[in-house]
Amino acid sequence: MEKLFVIKIGGNIIDDEIKLSSFLQSFAKIEGKKILVHGGGKLATKLAKQLGVEQQMIDGRRITDAETLKIVTMVYAGFINKNIVAKLQSQHCNAIGLSGADGNCIVSHKRGSNSGGIDYGFVGDVDAVNSILLKTLLEQNIAVVLAPITVDTNGQLLNTNADTIAQETAKALSILYDVELIYSFEKSGVLLDVHDETTVIATINPLSYQTLKEGKKIFEGMIPKLDNAFAALQSGVTKVIIGKAEELNQLISGSSGTSIVQ
Amino acid sequence: MEKLFVIKIGGNIIDDEIKLSSFLQSFAKIEGKKILVHGGGKLATKLAKQLGVEQQMIDGRRITDAETLKIVTMVYAGFINKNIVAKLQSQHCNAIGLSGADGNCIVSHKRGSNSGGIDYGFVGDVDAVNSILLKTLLEQNIAVVLAPITVDTNGQLLNTNADTIAQETAKALSILYDVELIYSFEKSGVLLDVHDETTVIATINPLSYQTLKEGKKIFEGMIPKLDNAFAALQSGVTKVIIGKAEELNQLISGSSGTSIVQ
Repeated sequence: MEKLFVIKIGGNIIDDEIKLSSFLQSFAKIEGKKILVHGGGKLATKLAKQLGVEQQMIDGRRITDAETLKIVTMVYAGFINKNIVAKLQSQHCNAIGLSGADGNCIVSHKRGSNSGGIDYGFVGDVDAVNSILLKTLLEQNIAVVLAPITVDTNGQLLNTNADTIAQETAKALSILYDVELIYSFEKSGVLLDVHDETTVIATINPLSYQTLKEGKKIFEGMIPKLDNAFAALQSGVTKVIIGKAEELNQLISGSSGTSIVQ
Repeated sequence: MEKLFVIKIGGNIIDDEIKLSSFLQSFAKIEGKKILVHGGGKLATKLAKQLGVEQQMIDGRRITDAETLKIVTMVYAGFINKNIVAKLQSQHCNAIGLSGADGNCIVSHKRGSNSGGIDYGFVGDVDAVNSILLKTLLEQNIAVVLAPITVDTNGQLLNTNADTIAQETAKALSILYDVELIYSFEKSGVLLDVHDETTVIATINPLSYQTLKEGKKIFEGMIPKLDNAFAALQSGVTKVIIGKAEELNQLISGSSGTSIVQ
């Protein structure tokens, strides 16, 4: 099967114009099929503040009320998505920016208010990825840029976790492609010592993961990402790589970051 | 050739949630290939005001400085575009929302500051429509929803007149389809008496247009629209219809509005 890269880029890179530009230059150079999933960054929070829309966060998750949904739709699916697409075009990488509503490409359902007693508001959990539409675009050598906004079957837009979108997209497309899923962010990979960037763990497999967890060697915030990575591998994704956004090309070549394997 | 409807919807309908909903219900019901081009409405102006970004208008045209470009990208390509797409999905009309940057589908150039001595800022005049991408989507029975934001060859996003986008899209696709271009807005059509909605002129051809203009029977604001309509017909568009957004189905069946013909 042909290779496909599904690459998630974190919010902190999006907030840094120079880092973003450099990342997109690397992304543009990747040969073959590719999908970029972007998070939100701080711009939505900033805009909400400017507009006097109060932001409620629970456990690091934004509660998305109607006004906040409007803001994240504008910022994620509008400003960030179109700026990324335009920058890729300027690098001669033909790209198309989509929300989950476009072509129903990522359909979700509103998270039930009974999930831990917290009502997250207009937040969606992914049900289905329209791999046919994505394949049609990829086959035209168009890079797909996905914003973390999805839609339910009633046409309700929903704010959705970008990591989850990357994972579900990678899983859905693993039937059609040899998919490598890359989570790129500010750290060099999964670190043994969270304060020391030179302690990157090159490879993690299920057995070593168990040992690392038992020895409490894994930074707590990393555990959901790793759990998701193993779930993706079990669903057909070939390889999951976690590492520094500035080292995208090295992540792909395998000379940097952490590889999660079966 | 198969029929394709290219339908422009004016800003005042977008600002009215009930009218927009009813319009989209009619749009969803149109059988066959269709493209919707939407304008901006007053939301961008409102948001600019809330954010303290001063809006400069010259001859009814917005001067698009960097901050205003950010706002219109958020509002047009984000909020309005994605809400229209989500509403169409809820009507079981599969739709995809694009800006001109997406798949380079509408490439423009920045309007020269020597155009009448006015510097319009980040405003684009359309150079090319990527009919191949649009055809690919249409052939999958996906309705395309175009936001009035385009891109130049350097990846600069540009604010662009939605009427022009509709016209250029209709012209470009007239090689592949039998295109009917519909401008839908708040009036019932081209009126003999601008204050009397019952004075719709059913048909205008080049000869009757000349007579109407000479007799000063045409409302001045209508003249650029009609000039563009005749230009579209000369470039291969089959028919141009101008009329009320609330009467979309009647505009298509020919029982309402003004038809502009060769």
